[in-house]
Amino acid sequence: MDLVKPTTLPGFMELDPKSQIMFDKIKRKMEDVFRSYGFYPIDSPILERSEILLAKGGGETEKQVYRFNKGDTDITMRYDLTVPLAKYVSMNYPQLAFPFKRYQIGKVYRGEKSQKGRFREFYQCDIDIIGSNQLSVLNEAEIPSIMCEVFNSIGLHEFVIRINNRKFLNGLFELKGIANHKTEALRTIDKLEKIGEDNVIVTLIEQGINEKVAKEILAILSFSGSNDEIIQEISKLLGQNDLYDQGVDELKSVIRYMKAFGADEDNYKIDLSIARGLDYYTGTVYETTFLPKPEIGSICSGGRYDELASHFTKESLPGVGMSIGLTRLFYILNEFGYIDKSNDGVADVLILPMTEDLSKATEISTLIRKQGIVTQVYLEDKKFKHKITYANKIEVPYVIFVGEEEIATNMLSLKDMRTGEQVKLDLESVIAQLKENIRMRSTDIIKIS
Amino acid sequence: MDLVKPTTLPGFMELDPKSQIMFDKIKRKMEDVFRSYGFYPIDSPILERSEILLAKGGGETEKQVYRFNKGDTDITMRYDLTVPLAKYVSMNYPQLAFPFKRYQIGKVYRGEKSQKGRFREFYQCDIDIIGSNQLSVLNEAEIPSIMCEVFNSIGLHEFVIRINNRKFLNGLFELKGIANHKTEALRTIDKLEKIGEDNVIVTLIEQGINEKVAKEILAILSFSGSNDEIIQEISKLLGQNDLYDQGVDELKSVIRYMKAFGADEDNYKIDLSIARGLDYYTGTVYETTFLPKPEIGSICSGGRYDELASHFTKESLPGVGMSIGLTRLFYILNEFGYIDKSNDGVADVLILPMTEDLSKATEISTLIRKQGIVTQVYLEDKKFKHKITYANKIEVPYVIFVGEEEIATNMLSLKDMRTGEQVKLDLESVIAQLKENIRMRSTDIIKIS
Repeated sequence: MDLVKPTTLPGFMELDPKSQIMFDKIKRKMEDVFRSYGFYPIDSPILERSEILLAKGGGETEKQVYRFNKGDTDITMRYDLTVPLAKYVSMNYPQLAFPFKRYQIGKVYRGEKSQKGRFREFYQCDIDIIGSNQLSVLNEAEIPSIMCEVFNSIGLHEFVIRINNRKFLNGLFELKGIANHKTEALRTIDKLEKIGEDNVIVTLIEQGINEKVAKEILAILSFSGSNDEIIQEISKLLGQNDLYDQGVDELKSVIRYMKAFGADEDNYKIDLSIARGLDYYTGTVYETTFLPKPEIGSICSGGRYDELASHFTKESLPGVGMSIGLTRLFYILNEFGYIDKSNDGVADVLILPMTEDLSKATEISTLIRKQGIVTQVYLEDKKFKHKITYANKIEVPYVIFVGEEEIATNMLSLKDMRTGEQVKLDLESVIAQLKENIRMRSTDIIKIS
Repeated sequence: MDLVKPTTLPGFMELDPKSQIMFDKIKRKMEDVFRSYGFYPIDSPILERSEILLAKGGGETEKQVYRFNKGDTDITMRYDLTVPLAKYVSMNYPQLAFPFKRYQIGKVYRGEKSQKGRFREFYQCDIDIIGSNQLSVLNEAEIPSIMCEVFNSIGLHEFVIRINNRKFLNGLFELKGIANHKTEALRTIDKLEKIGEDNVIVTLIEQGINEKVAKEILAILSFSGSNDEIIQEISKLLGQNDLYDQGVDELKSVIRYMKAFGADEDNYKIDLSIARGLDYYTGTVYETTFLPKPEIGSICSGGRYDELASHFTKESLPGVGMSIGLTRLFYILNEFGYIDKSNDGVADVLILPMTEDLSKATEISTLIRKQGIVTQVYLEDKKFKHKITYANKIEVPYVIFVGEEEIATNMLSLKDMRTGEQVKLDLESVIAQLKENIRMRSTDIIKIS
């Protein structure tokens, strides 16, 4: 028979078993945090009718999607989790409790140009709160607070969520008399970090904005300081434009309530220069900088929007959400060696039977496992060398030998695979030592420095 | 703007938020059990090159798959988790530790005829142990023992894993002189439950088997009794055919070691009449009957096979695995009302602020959440009636009112939403009561009768 060469499609991440354990651990910690805030999980299909996913139409998205016909049905693979959410909320509107809080961690598909670190199949991790007709600005504090906890829960402490407000920005443009330039101005300002202050000013001038005004705007947007100092600075222009005043007020509320939600002040700051290119944001916007490698770009972004589902329903569905590109984030953390794999093997202990009849060894494995200890028993009839090679390959911290003598004396031989130390203990003491080892391990998944 | 009607494709399950919580809980419990036995998680892509997934070629599968071109690439959506496993093990052969133990819970796609209870996108939940060149029969005891624990862990106790052995069956055919009819005979016997003993005998005779032999075989295969009685019965024919003897021996080992693995004897039994139609099984085979509704067919099946990946590699990769069709199982349990949703709301408690400034209420929510209690805080500026409607809609068991008086006296108003009882307690006592309520809840997800 001719063999088919086993390969994975380019742009599709398939992890080695150990990395997959770490990936799943991160995913689960994230879910735990979302659940702790009372968010519903949603698991929408990966396939939808093309008319649903492409209702908004046009643009880059349409060129990248995986789209095909099955029978008479024009099908597209989801390319984000937002359109499926819009569909879900519109379809289930009468049954849902509003504000509707949901998270979803799922794979999405984009046929992007294949390159290192870019994925065609990747996990997105989204949280959103959707209101019916109205939604308090305080939700714009809850969402980034949850994301702060998410990152910290996996041991990733070195990040800053940068917060700005579209009302503030648009209000500022109105106040400075350039309301008719606001779309281009917003896009230009969004590039501040990339192209620098001077180039932004040049571009704004090219867009027809007076040089003096451009410079005034830039002076405000690049003002840096503590959150309080920034609020103080922008408060100087209060009372001239309603939208501006509202934006400043919202920024104040978000900052104040993030503290009440328990977010660490090192993890968030007002940054007046971020804008988020997407048109549909209307209030608070967020970007997240990974401090050890700021050059990788935002690792968690989002914002407030006014109409989640205007293509599907006449109901007004304002919302706020943030999203993590989990596959890319994991890839980066893994590439830089920030994933601490030292603490998590596939098992806490491996039983190596040394007798022909394995029933006693198997029974012992069952007793230990029932104590909450991840236990493997080696069932193959192989030489001792093979058994130890297996133990080393799965990087198990402890091995228990069960031979005739151990069975006769009811004493087990417990070997610490890191130190090589081997002791004889009764089952109870073995369990105690294994539990102590588990208890002592760090639960942080990510370790930087 | 013209609205697009929001719909989900037929055959795609999209759950209401509360059911999704239950589905996720089941999925997680399954993962916990698999992990406790030291199985690696694997998360292979949903898309693969068609030549990979269809390497085996032909048959019903090829007609049902979702297949399309993207650029020059001929792509198919995975229709099971076995072919991706075969690819994975072949690709990563040098790095893997054998026996390689892995589980995967993931969506698969089959464009089946759409009908109630049949899904085109569904979760499969697979565990397999793959050996390199050899694999002990004891693994054939471990796999069903794990599945026993999986079902019990979710509160589904009413099932029996029925166990048979292909070597026993083929040995029996050889011993009875019908070795040249074994493929058809196996397929016919597999239908025993469906078409009954008489029809099986008629069919076997039509297939050219002597009536007396057909009846003798049926007499053996329909022998019922305890596992020990069955072993005793089939042991009468030992010593005449090697394959038969080996099959009986394997059945004995599997039964004996399942006990050592802690499986409850009510949950498994030898059933000589099951055969599993698939050609590639070579040893133990399994089917699982859901006792309250046996008519739904096997809820968990699998078996021992000799060549996992003969299309991808020359390495011999024998294995044993079982699979649960999770989406269908959940659908059935839900339809029959067996999912106990009474214990799991989206939150353990909801904070309802009664003041204009919500910072104190938010701080209290943070303190309670940090105690491991799932806590929502209602942030909308709405009338009391709206707040209570929301509480009822999310079915939260407790509500805490935080008004001016509560803040001034440091005493919170805790309302039990089921009894209507309301008490004033300090924060510590509120937390204690909520924790007690969580502790008292059943952790069973499934409740039958």
